[in-house]
Amino acid sequence: MTQQALAELTARLPGLRLLTEAGDLEHYGRDWTRRWTPAPLAIAMPASIEEVQGIVRWANECQVAIVPSGGRTGLSGGAVAARGELVLSLARMNRVLGFDAVDRMLTVQPGIALEAVQEAARGQGLIYPVDFAARGSCSIGGNIATNAGGIRVIRYGNTREWIGGLKVVAGNGELLDLNRGLVKNSSGYDFRQLMIGSEGTLGIVVEASLRLTDPPPAAQVMLLALPDMHAMMQVFALFRARLTLQAFEFFTEVALKHVLAHGAQRAIEGNHPFYVVTEFEAADERAQEAALAAFEQGLEQGWISDGVLAQSDAQAAALWRLREGITESLAPHKPYKNDVSVRIGALPAFLQEIQSLLAREYPQIEVVWFGHIGDGNLHINVLKPESLSDADFIAQCEHVTQLLADTLQRHGGSISAEHGIGLVKRAYLQSTRSAAEIALMRTVKAAFDPNGILNPGKLLI
Amino acid sequence: MTQQALAELTARLPGLRLLTEAGDLEHYGRDWTRRWTPAPLAIAMPASIEEVQGIVRWANECQVAIVPSGGRTGLSGGAVAARGELVLSLARMNRVLGFDAVDRMLTVQPGIALEAVQEAARGQGLIYPVDFAARGSCSIGGNIATNAGGIRVIRYGNTREWIGGLKVVAGNGELLDLNRGLVKNSSGYDFRQLMIGSEGTLGIVVEASLRLTDPPPAAQVMLLALPDMHAMMQVFALFRARLTLQAFEFFTEVALKHVLAHGAQRAIEGNHPFYVVTEFEAADERAQEAALAAFEQGLEQGWISDGVLAQSDAQAAALWRLREGITESLAPHKPYKNDVSVRIGALPAFLQEIQSLLAREYPQIEVVWFGHIGDGNLHINVLKPESLSDADFIAQCEHVTQLLADTLQRHGGSISAEHGIGLVKRAYLQSTRSAAEIALMRTVKAAFDPNGILNPGKLLI
Repeated sequence: MTQQALAELTARLPGLRLLTEAGDLEHYGRDWTRRWTPAPLAIAMPASIEEVQGIVRWANECQVAIVPSGGRTGLSGGAVAARGELVLSLARMNRVLGFDAVDRMLTVQPGIALEAVQEAARGQGLIYPVDFAARGSCSIGGNIATNAGGIRVIRYGNTREWIGGLKVVAGNGELLDLNRGLVKNSSGYDFRQLMIGSEGTLGIVVEASLRLTDPPPAAQVMLLALPDMHAMMQVFALFRARLTLQAFEFFTEVALKHVLAHGAQRAIEGNHPFYVVTEFEAADERAQEAALAAFEQGLEQGWISDGVLAQSDAQAAALWRLREGITESLAPHKPYKNDVSVRIGALPAFLQEIQSLLAREYPQIEVVWFGHIGDGNLHINVLKPESLSDADFIAQCEHVTQLLADTLQRHGGSISAEHGIGLVKRAYLQSTRSAAEIALMRTVKAAFDPNGILNPGKLLI
Repeated sequence: MTQQALAELTARLPGLRLLTEAGDLEHYGRDWTRRWTPAPLAIAMPASIEEVQGIVRWANECQVAIVPSGGRTGLSGGAVAARGELVLSLARMNRVLGFDAVDRMLTVQPGIALEAVQEAARGQGLIYPVDFAARGSCSIGGNIATNAGGIRVIRYGNTREWIGGLKVVAGNGELLDLNRGLVKNSSGYDFRQLMIGSEGTLGIVVEASLRLTDPPPAAQVMLLALPDMHAMMQVFALFRARLTLQAFEFFTEVALKHVLAHGAQRAIEGNHPFYVVTEFEAADERAQEAALAAFEQGLEQGWISDGVLAQSDAQAAALWRLREGITESLAPHKPYKNDVSVRIGALPAFLQEIQSLLAREYPQIEVVWFGHIGDGNLHINVLKPESLSDADFIAQCEHVTQLLADTLQRHGGSISAEHGIGLVKRAYLQSTRSAAEIALMRTVKAAFDPNGILNPGKLLI
């Protein structure tokens, strides 16, 4: 039946590139989670909107499930194809289509890498400010599908804020041209916003118009060593009040050790429970003096134990590497990832509670914390001990994730801050969204994708 | 039947305040459009979320239509009750509920006036930056329902950007607690965004958490006189490149005459086709010098004919009055309002085309232009000649609006930039949204409001 369906697809779209070799199925069938065994039907690599639309119509008629696929750097299994789905890879639709200097809008195809978008923006004397470590591999379509956040959300917001328009092939095969780059458009439901963060379950982004902005003034980068969580919240409040923060990222000594083992250099002597990399605007002497004054005050209060202010771009990059290198340094340990958020004001109470929870539930297991304190977003990476099997390890982590989800629910938080729900977190969705909301999500899904062909089993069970 | 339904409502919610006197029905049954004859069933004035929920459940069971109602300053008929609906006024739910200093979030009830929100923000040393002339009368719930824009969108965006969380009673009676003020939350479809701009057709906002921000540096206000549209676009590009613009608002000599007739003072001698009020950050001498240099360059190029830089707060207010007084000064002339937008880059071609269109179609009728050039948003006010009856005048305006809608469609624009579709523009919705989008809007509406009790006939016919 499925081979028959593939033959039908080829007959309809003779120019469509289709990959069916085992190596390709393996490569395109999985994302960075590495938890599921890839088993796609085939990989379709359309080169045009018309081909995407043709595939979606074919899938509706032949009842074949589609997994939309970008850079597959996702951490929630949203791009995994393990049940005979057709992977629809946007890898060949990766060009810049145009730049409008008056609207300062860059129009791109969905398969373009975030870094290529950033470079194209710089080429116009502007910036696309969303940024995170996977910039070289992730695609803008995937960024939109998860409303990607990253390291400068505190200054620039999430991906959502930068989308002026989207062309989307909905699950029903219709091409929707949403908002068309308008600044103001109060003409009915904003489906552009609904698509952002919908993880490929409502439609496939086939074109995006991205708002660009002016480059920020010169920035400085500082590394701080801190004695405890309470001090970290105090320093955050102090720095935010005095400086224009672009980033305020924390990690623990445990996280630092992994990055150092991967070749990074320690920038502050001694062991400290917490570190913060912060980047702030420092266009003139006044701003630089304000930063030093805030630092001095933090020292006097005992909130800061030590600190380094980068004296060169190279040193700034070295300090950033301590934070950005964490995910890569953990990969060999097959980490189980939690990506949670609460309101910033709820962080202290929440942190206290989950510190006890994790210490109790993972007595023999290494837990690495880092995240975006200014966004209330915490990454908790649990490292697999060699003695445990993959299955036993994941079972234990799922048990703890349920406890974490219960704690999040009490604190009004979210089980997924920026990774999405995908396969990994769908069992915990009800900790963040009410039964009434989930019921509405199902109905809305059915409106856009009546035959349920788009990323079935992702986000919603 | 309807009296029986009202009796049932009173029996269920004995504490609910209900108004049924003729004067109240008239007062609460209309908005600023004044085109329809108010004829509501009654006015309900709930004081709590529970009462709102009780009313919505009653309406579902008794099949009574509800018109959610805020400050009724709308210009599209979204809050008109002319067909026996129950007006659900949020006027009594108008308090500030709390302020979270860490998250810089103000939680309010929906009936609070925009100006009261701005004042509460200032009381915390912060600002809520959405602003427009109706600030004293409009409610935040209505701002959310239309995704209100206003005069500082160029710097701060629309209402959408400032909503951290919404509590909504959906048409099906469920209370939804959407996003809860989280900065990052990638856990399924963002219904908060879907609610914003949905004009009370999906749910009733019963609580909103508003993000606040730092007050901007000191600003300066400048009035410019310009020879033509082309010059205006050149000056906009020049000023935007050199300054941090907070507002860039234009109006015509015809608009100015109406404001002067209402008691304002001319600030630049002579008659000029176009004027711009612009406000820009001017924290230090360098910024002030940059502004003067940009002004000089505009003069030399012939793009600027004359200009005034406000030397005091009082003079700045006087210059702003020339722009903000327009709507009030036109009211006695029963203007027919078009509120349209295109991409900023599409403005020159669009403006040229509609200038000819309006000159041809309204030969004997006065047309007043103003708007937000930096947002691609144009307000076209057509003034009723005394010789024409209301009905004949509106018929002629509808004819021209259809031509305008066709032109907008060719230029990728929107028939409603910031007023919403309501009753006034619903016949033209298909100029801005495709048939596929409108069909999806109907299905989504049915998901949230299965019995169609929320603002029926608004937005969607």
